[in-house]
Amino acid sequence: MALIYLDHASTTPPDPRVVAAMEPYWTEHFGNPLSTHPFGEKPREAVEEARGAVASLLGCAAREIIFTSSGTEANNLAVKGLALARAKRGKHLVVSAVEHQSVMNAAQSMAKLGWEVSTVPVDCYGLVDGDDLKGALRADTTLVCVNLANLEIGTLEPVKELAEVVAANSEAAFHADAVQAVGHIPVDVEALGVDLLSVSGHRFYGPKGVGALYFRRGVRLHPLLDGGIQEGGRRAGTENVPAIVGLGEAARIAAAEGEERSARIRRLRDRLHDGLFERIDHLHLNGHPERRLPTHESVCIEYVEGEAMSLFLVREGICASSGSTCSSRALKASHVLLACSLDPAVAQGSLQFTLGAGNTEAEIDKVLDVLPEIVRQLRAMSPLYPRESRPE
Amino acid sequence: MALIYLDHASTTPPDPRVVAAMEPYWTEHFGNPLSTHPFGEKPREAVEEARGAVASLLGCAAREIIFTSSGTEANNLAVKGLALARAKRGKHLVVSAVEHQSVMNAAQSMAKLGWEVSTVPVDCYGLVDGDDLKGALRADTTLVCVNLANLEIGTLEPVKELAEVVAANSEAAFHADAVQAVGHIPVDVEALGVDLLSVSGHRFYGPKGVGALYFRRGVRLHPLLDGGIQEGGRRAGTENVPAIVGLGEAARIAAAEGEERSARIRRLRDRLHDGLFERIDHLHLNGHPERRLPTHESVCIEYVEGEAMSLFLVREGICASSGSTCSSRALKASHVLLACSLDPAVAQGSLQFTLGAGNTEAEIDKVLDVLPEIVRQLRAMSPLYPRESRPE
Repeated sequence: MALIYLDHASTTPPDPRVVAAMEPYWTEHFGNPLSTHPFGEKPREAVEEARGAVASLLGCAAREIIFTSSGTEANNLAVKGLALARAKRGKHLVVSAVEHQSVMNAAQSMAKLGWEVSTVPVDCYGLVDGDDLKGALRADTTLVCVNLANLEIGTLEPVKELAEVVAANSEAAFHADAVQAVGHIPVDVEALGVDLLSVSGHRFYGPKGVGALYFRRGVRLHPLLDGGIQEGGRRAGTENVPAIVGLGEAARIAAAEGEERSARIRRLRDRLHDGLFERIDHLHLNGHPERRLPTHESVCIEYVEGEAMSLFLVREGICASSGSTCSSRALKASHVLLACSLDPAVAQGSLQFTLGAGNTEAEIDKVLDVLPEIVRQLRAMSPLYPRESRPE
Repeated sequence: MALIYLDHASTTPPDPRVVAAMEPYWTEHFGNPLSTHPFGEKPREAVEEARGAVASLLGCAAREIIFTSSGTEANNLAVKGLALARAKRGKHLVVSAVEHQSVMNAAQSMAKLGWEVSTVPVDCYGLVDGDDLKGALRADTTLVCVNLANLEIGTLEPVKELAEVVAANSEAAFHADAVQAVGHIPVDVEALGVDLLSVSGHRFYGPKGVGALYFRRGVRLHPLLDGGIQEGGRRAGTENVPAIVGLGEAARIAAAEGEERSARIRRLRDRLHDGLFERIDHLHLNGHPERRLPTHESVCIEYVEGEAMSLFLVREGICASSGSTCSSRALKASHVLLACSLDPAVAQGSLQFTLGAGNTEAEIDKVLDVLPEIVRQLRAMSPLYPRESRPE
């Protein structure tokens, strides 16, 4: 049975051009970019070319990009690096209630070291309100973190407006986790007005093992990885040249083809959305109906367990997710859905389809064909499903 | 002109089998190991197989291996993770004077957060003395760091004996940076008696972008990268599956062929050593003549600048290093050579040949052919070279 991959928020298959671009850097151009002899030349040039490509995609200068090993590392570097660098100015951090664990838990690590962390709530769509954010700001706030696009529900935060609120009312830096956004929607750090922004290679057809952090020129960061002089002293360790080259190639592809790619994915996603809401009752869309990523269709299906639906879907060859993959084995209700004030019982029925470049109409139609029947079967076993909703 | 690569301490070319082993994980097996659907299965199995291979090479249990993005990250996790986890027990760290910058600077970062750092000196060979180490231990010492093999000079520390000293006289954990040792000499964590040990993929024919930290079962570590539940909660971020697979393959190759490979490299290195000392006067061997890695021939050539020799060698196609690559662009005298009480003027003439699996006798003979003439030319320009040593 051919498998249907609808879990692109978890990881995307690298574009074949990305894999091809990396290949020479595993073999003939294996050198260390810091080497002053000829083996260092080509790797050094390639790293800087990739830096330029990522910078170009984000609308910043190449010197404002730090390569990391992942989006998680970029988020940790943003939170801890900024907090430590500004420790003398203040020890108060503000994060939204729907941040990825790498932001949430990094902030909690700083809390153990004496920082205070405030969490700003979201509305039922997962949106942060400017007034709520303003109310959370203090004279000693040094960093505000609001993700650009939510990993689980795809909601797009009004980052531009929120960054303006922060700039007008505090000295705090603004960090946007854009791991789920970059490559899928236009992201321009100048237009957004952010100081820090995180990127992950494998979330937009680049390789695993590489991410990037945009840091506005002049924003000081304490390194997370101390050691050699790589990345201007901000991130030590021999550069992962092949993966950096792959990230650069993914950025180039996104700049050239991202808009068309996302438009096509959006049409498939809308087909899925319309079909699901035609065929399944007691269905709840997670996140904002319009202000969300083109890739995401996250729903809660009442009176069904998300985990059970996932397993039944796999039997039909359909691979979706019942929540954030980074915590999927924890089997806890998603903190994002709970932050959206969803009834915990309903949140148990979450199912996340995240579409990608390789999906087809036929694959979407297969989902629309099999999911209603799976839901019917599972609900038939549920004592909670109301009698009046049951088919004759 | 064919280039001769004699800078394997900087980075090694991945074994072709390593590149081949990684390939399917960039393409068909691109899934996220945490996914509960079929796309997660093969990557998850591959990561655990690699963990087993690394554990087998080091003589530990698979659950005692944490994958990181580099040796630098492994060293940072060891130093900061252990220090933070034991903060209530004490805030004193001990490091040898010849540690890699990733250990040195990680310890200095902890110093900024309130820890005290003591540095243990080394003798002229770069060896740490057990009594010196004993003298540095305090009731509040929580961690001792001594590298197993020195990156620059190749000296092998008596880690087993030093770990015994630490165990007999303190509650401190013992960390050995083995980035330069693993794959080149036998490394058995049980025999060494260490609690933490760092590994880097690209230093022994594995890929860049991956490292590992051995942590003895029961040793608590605070994560450096907070976020998802990967690596048992000790290191968040989507696993760099292809690179981890590559590291596993490098470990398997090292276990099967490392001894023969190192014996062959040692013969070439000894040929280089003997030839250099026959042909060049005022030559100083850095590190211990016997207790050193089979790969390393680090020398100081008096009355010559190392940087100038490197450049002249490159004109002959020979790529060596005038010092540690991680700081090579800093143009400072090596802290390792200064710790060995080398005259700073002599330390300026350092030249490091690090040999690898691909080197040949003909390549070594080329070095022996051209270097004496380069030294003669450079010394002829030096006002410091003594007249009585000059040829007629």
